[in-house]
Amino acid sequence: MSELKGACIIGQSGGPTSVINSSVLGALETALDNPSITRVLGAAHGIKGVLDDFLYDIDKEDREELALLRYTPSSALGSCRYKLADPDVDDTDYKRILEIFKKYDVRYFFYNGGNDSMDTCNKISKFMMKSGYECRVMGIPKTIDNDLFGTDHCPGFASAAKYIATSCMEIYQDARVYDTGMVCIVEIMGRHAGWLTAASALATAQGAGPDLIYLPERDFDMDKFIADVKRVYAEKGNCLVAVSEGIHYADGSFVSEAKTSATDGFGHAQLGGLAAMLADKVKSETGAKVRGIELSLLQRCAAHCASKTDVDESYASGKAAVENAVAGKTDFMPGFKCTRDANGYKCEIALLPLSEVANTEKKVPQDWINAEGNGVNQGFIDYAMPLIAGDNDGPKVNGLPRFAQLKKIKAEA
Amino acid sequence: MSELKGACIIGQSGGPTSVINSSVLGALETALDNPSITRVLGAAHGIKGVLDDFLYDIDKEDREELALLRYTPSSALGSCRYKLADPDVDDTDYKRILEIFKKYDVRYFFYNGGNDSMDTCNKISKFMMKSGYECRVMGIPKTIDNDLFGTDHCPGFASAAKYIATSCMEIYQDARVYDTGMVCIVEIMGRHAGWLTAASALATAQGAGPDLIYLPERDFDMDKFIADVKRVYAEKGNCLVAVSEGIHYADGSFVSEAKTSATDGFGHAQLGGLAAMLADKVKSETGAKVRGIELSLLQRCAAHCASKTDVDESYASGKAAVENAVAGKTDFMPGFKCTRDANGYKCEIALLPLSEVANTEKKVPQDWINAEGNGVNQGFIDYAMPLIAGDNDGPKVNGLPRFAQLKKIKAEA
Repeated sequence: MSELKGACIIGQSGGPTSVINSSVLGALETALDNPSITRVLGAAHGIKGVLDDFLYDIDKEDREELALLRYTPSSALGSCRYKLADPDVDDTDYKRILEIFKKYDVRYFFYNGGNDSMDTCNKISKFMMKSGYECRVMGIPKTIDNDLFGTDHCPGFASAAKYIATSCMEIYQDARVYDTGMVCIVEIMGRHAGWLTAASALATAQGAGPDLIYLPERDFDMDKFIADVKRVYAEKGNCLVAVSEGIHYADGSFVSEAKTSATDGFGHAQLGGLAAMLADKVKSETGAKVRGIELSLLQRCAAHCASKTDVDESYASGKAAVENAVAGKTDFMPGFKCTRDANGYKCEIALLPLSEVANTEKKVPQDWINAEGNGVNQGFIDYAMPLIAGDNDGPKVNGLPRFAQLKKIKAEA
Repeated sequence: MSELKGACIIGQSGGPTSVINSSVLGALETALDNPSITRVLGAAHGIKGVLDDFLYDIDKEDREELALLRYTPSSALGSCRYKLADPDVDDTDYKRILEIFKKYDVRYFFYNGGNDSMDTCNKISKFMMKSGYECRVMGIPKTIDNDLFGTDHCPGFASAAKYIATSCMEIYQDARVYDTGMVCIVEIMGRHAGWLTAASALATAQGAGPDLIYLPERDFDMDKFIADVKRVYAEKGNCLVAVSEGIHYADGSFVSEAKTSATDGFGHAQLGGLAAMLADKVKSETGAKVRGIELSLLQRCAAHCASKTDVDESYASGKAAVENAVAGKTDFMPGFKCTRDANGYKCEIALLPLSEVANTEKKVPQDWINAEGNGVNQGFIDYAMPLIAGDNDGPKVNGLPRFAQLKKIKAEA
């Protein structure tokens, strides 16, 4: 494989995570130190930054400040939810991307995101090949949803899982403090895959977590749910429930959809979520004191509770993307191949073809969900437990985290 | 002062905090090691446990396990919201308490709580004196609301403040990640005092926090609020807002009350909170993408983000209560007297008479709130910043906190 010299662009896409910047740091530092890469550019708001010719000169950033990306949540370069058209139908965007690549002599493109982003990578790579423009394209995985195909797990999942399990342990302590009982319902992200909601079971495995857990991998039955809650509440005097935002009835309709028919005091539709709706339902059915809690954005940005394992693996994934591209690889995503046995947990980088990863969702295996459909079993615990090991050890100032403050200087060709 | 020998009872009351168990640990360990205290009893669910003769034998707990209370959130002994009657009107409860005190030879009573609990202490102490039964009574302060009179600050406030400021910093990163703008409204606890909501300004002081902050110490004006949000959103393309759950209109009615007129798909009143209601209002007035986030129980139980300063001071307060009682003091609460100057922050225990503390609420000083009523100034930052220093360094197992698991053996007389 001949050496390919040129600039690289690194972009971030989709919903942010606590550690997506650690992946980008792994890519940026490796690229900055590699002689084949002549210039390191960051795309402002992902592929939109490429289309708008809005790129940052990463070479002009202070390296010590840049290193703080390891501890800084959310997408430091900015994100987007822009979906490229099918190039066979409309190749306008692709022509523009090629134009920008030529303008800056870009020979390496790294895109950090979930399913859609891997699809974007794949389409760009194919168009460049068809156009005879040599450019190596690598996806860098991220998603708290943990639903990327082919990899053992996804960077970002473990930190969200650790935050969810930790918070559920703390809520468990709080929600049973009074001499009167309480039902508490925690709503967790995950529209189609229940990985994050399942992570609440790590708290239960630690002796202080949800009594009942409902994932979108099983059809939701409201009557069964109410009966489950009534049973636990009668037995224990308290009940902690974790529900995925994506739980749906057998006909496929989301349980959360019922809320849209409500209006507030101003006559507008209520924005209150699934947890509040289920809390209200349980209250009217049981008479118990009920509280609904939505973990909301916090579960994807609480870097203070990040998993060190996740931070390190995310960095390794970004680093591997650049190293493999320079070595001649293209159209891959560095995922993880892991073993869990008597020797402990081991994680290695595995290069997965983008075409296989793109647009395939991985869900929680049915045999990790209990027969009742209201909990997960040891199979899931053994899978997830090693991923949340180790704590964020980032610097603090005045008792608060010190996040990276990049200069973000607009690049000129 | 002659030595008083006898048993002690320690109880917890009111809403829990991340560090209320650290206060109790300070009291328990000091009592266990003090020769004047013949037996250490914990009241199950505060004064209710005394009335029900449901006490725990703390002497039978494992000391190493007990020590984990330092890192365990919520009230380990259980809490209650029971308010004793005025003894001049109905002294039934007081007679029962005297009976239990005599049954176990209780000569020391320590009660760990907020305003109401200090009032409970005060009433019990007066009744014991009137009855000629020698018993020393001490309050041990706690409240995330930080509204106890006479003390510089309250155990529990700083850890909640640290969690709120940290979370706001993280939400700030997340809520401006896309190329399209967003308004994000964070609802924070504090029905009458805005200390916790003001704590979000610590994030702003760190360069990543709310643009607008509304406390219950100022009347809320919906039109002014919408104009504020519109202005910031137009200037920055994003807007992060922190609101206290207790914000109210000039006529005293809570802004959150409007929600009660809403009903959900089942025809029941919506439980959605203030943040969701304000988010909906802002959305309809601005057309912006808006998200409402309620920090809910997490802000008072997120021990993983506790302030070490708070943990240590809470312990010191519990310890001082026991030491001073054994030394002959009664009817006091060990609060804090602090100095903040060129030599840094210093905190000393100050014994405050219960009669002065009970039932007086301390609010955020008006001169720490800006003229516009939508932010706090450096006076508050200088006050609060030293309180959140240092991190929780508690033990972990499998990447998750290791909480105390007490035996809770019911005491026999």
